[in-house]
Amino acid sequence: MMTVADITLGLMSETVITKIFGMSRWEPNARGRLEEAALELYSERGFDQTTVAEIAQLAGLTERTFFRHFADKREVLFGGEGMLDEIVTRVVAGAAESAAPIDAVAEGLAAIGEMFRGRRDHARRRQAVIAANPGLQERELIKLSRLAAATADVLRRRGVSEPAASLTAEAGIAVFKVAFERWVADGPDRELSTVIGESVDELKAVAGGRH
Amino acid sequence: MMTVADITLGLMSETVITKIFGMSRWEPNARGRLEEAALELYSERGFDQTTVAEIAQLAGLTERTFFRHFADKREVLFGGEGMLDEIVTRVVAGAAESAAPIDAVAEGLAAIGEMFRGRRDHARRRQAVIAANPGLQERELIKLSRLAAATADVLRRRGVSEPAASLTAEAGIAVFKVAFERWVADGPDRELSTVIGESVDELKAVAGGRH
Repeated sequence: MMTVADITLGLMSETVITKIFGMSRWEPNARGRLEEAALELYSERGFDQTTVAEIAQLAGLTERTFFRHFADKREVLFGGEGMLDEIVTRVVAGAAESAAPIDAVAEGLAAIGEMFRGRRDHARRRQAVIAANPGLQERELIKLSRLAAATADVLRRRGVSEPAASLTAEAGIAVFKVAFERWVADGPDRELSTVIGESVDELKAVAGGRH
Repeated sequence: MMTVADITLGLMSETVITKIFGMSRWEPNARGRLEEAALELYSERGFDQTTVAEIAQLAGLTERTFFRHFADKREVLFGGEGMLDEIVTRVVAGAAESAAPIDAVAEGLAAIGEMFRGRRDHARRRQAVIAANPGLQERELIKLSRLAAATADVLRRRGVSEPAASLTAEAGIAVFKVAFERWVADGPDRELSTVIGESVDELKAVAGGRH
């Protein structure tokens, strides 16, 4: 029997329902379940040997649902990309007007670090899958390159001239890359934002010739 | 009629002949001709619309000769990659023992700059082809990522510890990337090595918060 709530929900688009309830109507947290299933299969049998059908099956969902969330099996690993760009852009734009560009970028990177709190095991497994596959490595580099471009863009909007804006952004992404790899390789008792902070200081030291 | 020279050459492998004479036996500068023909076709009709057969034809060579020099049509654009790694590795390894890591890397990058003397027009055309094709952009990023890894490696052999070695190397490649784009976009009256030198100084300034 249908209730009033069912009818109301029936009139709302799935996107709206997802926004309100944080999940799809019939598939609570489908996205997260697909990501977890994909990572498990990629880790076990390799990226190339895994099909979308198998990922959907392990997640208890259909292939159609998979393709509602991801364009292809590669994109399951890069779902948070838009969010990275958005966080950095917002935090760098909102940094104190007096902040030096490198410190505004450092704030943005630290905010990304916060996003990974409690996700180190997931990040470590994802990194291992990517390291085993040249095509995924290229995709990861494109992601970081876009993040650098978005960062340079927001720095220019803060009034930083070229080439300082591009150099600061690219150096910031270099820091992020090195810090992320260290965080994943190090023990589990440190937060990414801490490692990023240390790496920014280290960049300042090496660029100042203090090594 | 065969001469003694012909007989002697007949006993030598083509690789040896190439090393001695700087060219293939029957195909003087085949490599350079293929590169030039490829760039011309990629610029005119686009990378995807060009075949190896067409490149070989325009260069006045056979497809077989093409594949003796390049694995596929993408690699024509990345032929100098090994040389980049070798130059940076050698120059950074040979920098004064007292040189700070960032300055050793700056020397290596300046040496790469020298390699591009008089090649700005070629570099500009190549850059335009790459900018128009996401697959080629990924390949270019992989090239720079390998260059960073090779640079970090030689810094570690100089006794630089981690993460300073990786950070310096990645920051150096960030400088190279930004400087190269500026050099290609700027007027033709500046040398790449000059732009690289300025960009290293700029990196030191931005990392020191002086902007």
